[in-house]
Amino acid sequence: MTASGSANGCSAGEAVFDWVDRHARHRRDNGLHRVVEPRRSAEDVLDLASNDYLGFARHPTVTEAAAAAARRWGTGSTGSRLVTGTTELHTTLEAELADLYGTEAALVFSSGYTANLALVTTLTGADSTIVSDSGNHASLIDGCRLSRARVRVVPHADPEAVRNALAESSPPHVVLSESVFSVDGDTADLDGLLAVCREHGAGLLVDDAHGLGVLGGGAGAFSAFGLGAPHDALAAVTLSKALGAQGGAVLGPRRVVDHIAQAARTFVFDTGLAPPAAAAALAGVRLLREEPRRAQRVQEVAHGLHGALAERGVPAGSPGAAVLGVPVGAPRTAVTWARSCLEHGVRVGCFRPPSVPDGASRLRLTARADLDDDDVRRVARTLAETAPG
Amino acid sequence: MTASGSANGCSAGEAVFDWVDRHARHRRDNGLHRVVEPRRSAEDVLDLASNDYLGFARHPTVTEAAAAAARRWGTGSTGSRLVTGTTELHTTLEAELADLYGTEAALVFSSGYTANLALVTTLTGADSTIVSDSGNHASLIDGCRLSRARVRVVPHADPEAVRNALAESSPPHVVLSESVFSVDGDTADLDGLLAVCREHGAGLLVDDAHGLGVLGGGAGAFSAFGLGAPHDALAAVTLSKALGAQGGAVLGPRRVVDHIAQAARTFVFDTGLAPPAAAAALAGVRLLREEPRRAQRVQEVAHGLHGALAERGVPAGSPGAAVLGVPVGAPRTAVTWARSCLEHGVRVGCFRPPSVPDGASRLRLTARADLDDDDVRRVARTLAETAPG
Ligand SMILES: Cc1ncc(COP(=O)(O)O)c(C=O)c1O
Ligand SMILES: Cc1ncc(COP(=O)(O)O)c(C=O)c1O
Repeated sequence: MTASGSANGCSAGEAVFDWVDRHARHRRDNGLHRVVEPRRSAEDVLDLASNDYLGFARHPTVTEAAAAAARRWGTGSTGSRLVTGTTELHTTLEAELADLYGTEAALVFSSGYTANLALVTTLTGADSTIVSDSGNHASLIDGCRLSRARVRVVPHADPEAVRNALAESSPPHVVLSESVFSVDGDTADLDGLLAVCREHGAGLLVDDAHGLGVLGGGAGAFSAFGLGAPHDALAAVTLSKALGAQGGAVLGPRRVVDHIAQAARTFVFDTGLAPPAAAAALAGVRLLREEPRRAQRVQEVAHGLHGALAERGVPAGSPGAAVLGVPVGAPRTAVTWARSCLEHGVRVGCFRPPSVPDGASRLRLTARADLDDDDVRRVARTLAETAPG
Repeated sequence: MTASGSANGCSAGEAVFDWVDRHARHRRDNGLHRVVEPRRSAEDVLDLASNDYLGFARHPTVTEAAAAAARRWGTGSTGSRLVTGTTELHTTLEAELADLYGTEAALVFSSGYTANLALVTTLTGADSTIVSDSGNHASLIDGCRLSRARVRVVPHADPEAVRNALAESSPPHVVLSESVFSVDGDTADLDGLLAVCREHGAGLLVDDAHGLGVLGGGAGAFSAFGLGAPHDALAAVTLSKALGAQGGAVLGPRRVVDHIAQAARTFVFDTGLAPPAAAAALAGVRLLREEPRRAQRVQEVAHGLHGALAERGVPAGSPGAAVLGVPVGAPRTAVTWARSCLEHGVRVGCFRPPSVPDGASRLRLTARADLDDDDVRRVARTLAETAPG
């Protein structure tokens, strides 16, 4: 990519950090430059790009819970969860998340990203093998890299490939997969994976970031797949998507979650989640249980969108939960298409390398429980009318 | 540590995750078990354990800013900073943080931890050498591990050792250090480090988590050390300590910060900071500039505490900013001492391995701007009276 051929090496005579200009040029030349642009607080656009699946981020019950927490507990947790960073909000949220999932315990982190790093690094080590789906999220991949374990990347959503990889390794080994893949929205065959894990004495680690609040009446993938409260599987979730807040959590057997609390660097050495975010997530969990219809509705909207797009000749993957991917190909085409949609009042996500493989740029649409059938039709019409020649 | 000799290996006949019980036993047998305990919202204790140096986490201006942001912008940012996760709060906060530091640009992350991972991983690569202080924070070490760079760990706070390491490597190389070390509270010789970096064409990466709000009249370590706005140095900060919120940021030359926004996995693949936290941090930055006396006061309190402890025979390191470390040795002794302090109404931090090296357990005290001279005397008296025999 650069004259020197190195990722970020300096050439002779260059000043420190001059190499970043070469990277910038490369991105611009290849349609890969990203813009950080603020959205407005009230927009006259139909939002199909956020992960606020249930509309909780602006639900008055949720926003008031955050406001009250700021006043009662303060705007920050003030320390590591093991020092001053644990409030009753955190422990209550953990109890109610575990109850929602049916697991013995839950542990809350400052983000889904740091929860995933904790999950992977504390449950594997230099003597472990991790069998990891090729479609896994960056945070899971970073967890693998930090773990020092041997990592076997297997083809996407392929339990047979997982079986073969496990047959070639020996315990301790774990299988690592998202439940709902974040870009294309397809689901993993979790009961198939758990069965394969049990054949080989492997643990199963599931990132349910896009399952919580959507699958299983909102109770997530373990419930949707009827896994019960497995002794040999753990889930990680984020509080920043369906729950409309910020933060993450790991869920599973108490002794394993306790181990994570003792050993995870992103727990021990990170400031605890801010009280307003913990309170918002807690309010979200409670709303979810009071009104499970929302979780059902978001899936109806996703399927409606899939059907309406197909009718108009826009191919999208069949959604396992709330996310739909529309393949495009070239990054510039994806950017232009997304921009046209926005000009027509519909905001969609646009994914380019390195977020997706080269040549696989795409639009990403997310269903929300508060979209009605007219909205769905309008989105499909807009995508069809602005589609690249 | 285990019969099998491996970090977390299974023994024959063990079920998946049974190995965590061995780790739990080891921790209990060695005084290394940690308890996750909620604090109360109103406590009758003198808090010397939090990092809320300026008392901003509960300052009414800050808590009201968070409450207003929850209502106006929602409780979560709803997506990656590159999709829907950037609001005007984020870009305003970035502009004001950069202005405070005197740098061209700033970029806000969901935590200081993820900001540090971004700083280290995007500015180094497989062809780089990182010269890293042996006392660096876990997030910096994880950044090194993720970077794939060659890492040279040098003795703590030793610019001469850094010079030797740089002389033995070649560009691209960077030096990585905290400004104020988080456990013992000593400071790095930043102008010495920058001079050494310039001799060898190296970049300087500084974690100013404990400098922001305290050093340089609150404007942090670059200002305190008179570094100006260096073209060859960047800082990372956290919004979760002196600013009383949550989140982190990197600060530096615009082109380099732009590169980080394009390349950092913890920026691109992480949900943006929650609006209430961004608003709280922004209110904190503004308070800091309006009342720089607070930053001065926290340093006075730290020095007062150091003197009062010394008078009573409790040895603490000389504080470079707001943090004081009191060496203890055995983990159980540290736990008992911290517990006695709490029973006497003074909460202090207690650091044990793996947070500190084996045999180097210690208490950690933090000064706060809102402590008065009576508080300082009471803390010193309590520590002296409860000190282990
Ligand atoms: C599958 C998946 N896992 C983890 C995360 C990280 O969660 P968070 O954004 O809360 O850090 C995300 C999204 O950001 C995700 O899509
Ligand atoms: C030196 C240092 N760097 C980074 C961090 C991480 O910041 P945060 O807690 O905001 O993630 C901390 C504290 O947690 C710290 O002490």
